[in-house]
Amino acid sequence: MKGAARVIARRGVRGLRVEELAAEAGVSTALIYYHFKDRAGVLRHTLEFISDRAERYTSEGAGGAGAYDARQELEQSLLLEFQDLAEVRENSTVWGELRASAIFDPALREDLARASLNWTHDVASLLGGIRPTAPAPALATSAERLTALLEGLSMRWLSGALPLAHARDLMREAVSVEIERLGRDTERQTHGA
Amino acid sequence: MKGAARVIARRGVRGLRVEELAAEAGVSTALIYYHFKDRAGVLRHTLEFISDRAERYTSEGAGGAGAYDARQELEQSLLLEFQDLAEVRENSTVWGELRASAIFDPALREDLARASLNWTHDVASLLGGIRPTAPAPALATSAERLTALLEGLSMRWLSGALPLAHARDLMREAVSVEIERLGRDTERQTHGA
Repeated sequence: MKGAARVIARRGVRGLRVEELAAEAGVSTALIYYHFKDRAGVLRHTLEFISDRAERYTSEGAGGAGAYDARQELEQSLLLEFQDLAEVRENSTVWGELRASAIFDPALREDLARASLNWTHDVASLLGGIRPTAPAPALATSAERLTALLEGLSMRWLSGALPLAHARDLMREAVSVEIERLGRDTERQTHGA
Repeated sequence: MKGAARVIARRGVRGLRVEELAAEAGVSTALIYYHFKDRAGVLRHTLEFISDRAERYTSEGAGGAGAYDARQELEQSLLLEFQDLAEVRENSTVWGELRASAIFDPALREDLARASLNWTHDVASLLGGIRPTAPAPALATSAERLTALLEGLSMRWLSGALPLAHARDLMREAVSVEIERLGRDTERQTHGA
């Protein structure tokens, strides 16, 4: 899977040939077909691999944090997607490639939609830790916007249209804008306005 | 250019062969090379073509609107990117493809960065019409977030991960969140806090 992510990050999903992947991983193509059935199977497992890896590197340093750190944890988890590290670039490139190729090839759509949903749930639950009285639908739409924005900013960063530091600033500010909004909405509701 | 957009929307940038484009347009490959020099030239002109076309269909119905309609004009220009019309789908698919392929191929980067900048400037200037006293850098970052979010939501919509109506709701709310924020910042500044 690591090899597949590397090959996709180098030349795109459309550049992925099972032969090349086999060479990269140092195994036979037969073994790959045995394990993953077909090319779509390889892509599905690659998606799982990069999702797990992203979850790992975006939760670095978390864990020991107390409840008052919910906001830091959220910022951290989103901002760590913007790092000038080979692993992060590779991960985001592959994610963008899988998303882009799903426009042409419906095979991956269901898995991608599920992965997006899981991610959005995680972000919504972190937002809920910051705004415990905000209604669930408001948390969900905030989370959808933050994750979709992150994808948009990632593509710009990776294609050289947006400097890394500026992408991080835009993301950080978006988090604060959404948290403020959730606070105001809750206030409005509480006061029955 | 229309033929190139059609071919790219069907099979992606990586699927674009000059031979197929020539067949689609009913001309010789020699004529295409004569006009556009090379494949990168074709892509550059396709980018120009879809930018012009997007500007046309996102400003529909505008023009007769008075100053009090600045907000409607902004919403309109962003929401008209989410329409279940062949032209709009094709345009957004091609834009996403050019953006995604720029990660692997630096040839288009400069043109794409310029097109994004122009778009962001347009959105910032519409925001300025709504919040005339907001400082230029605040308008610019709001516009960057709105356009990057639009790209992210577009990819989700086109890949079947987000229903069209929901994408529009998320976008509309994002506009209102950014406009509110620009209002608050201005107020804060005016009051010297």
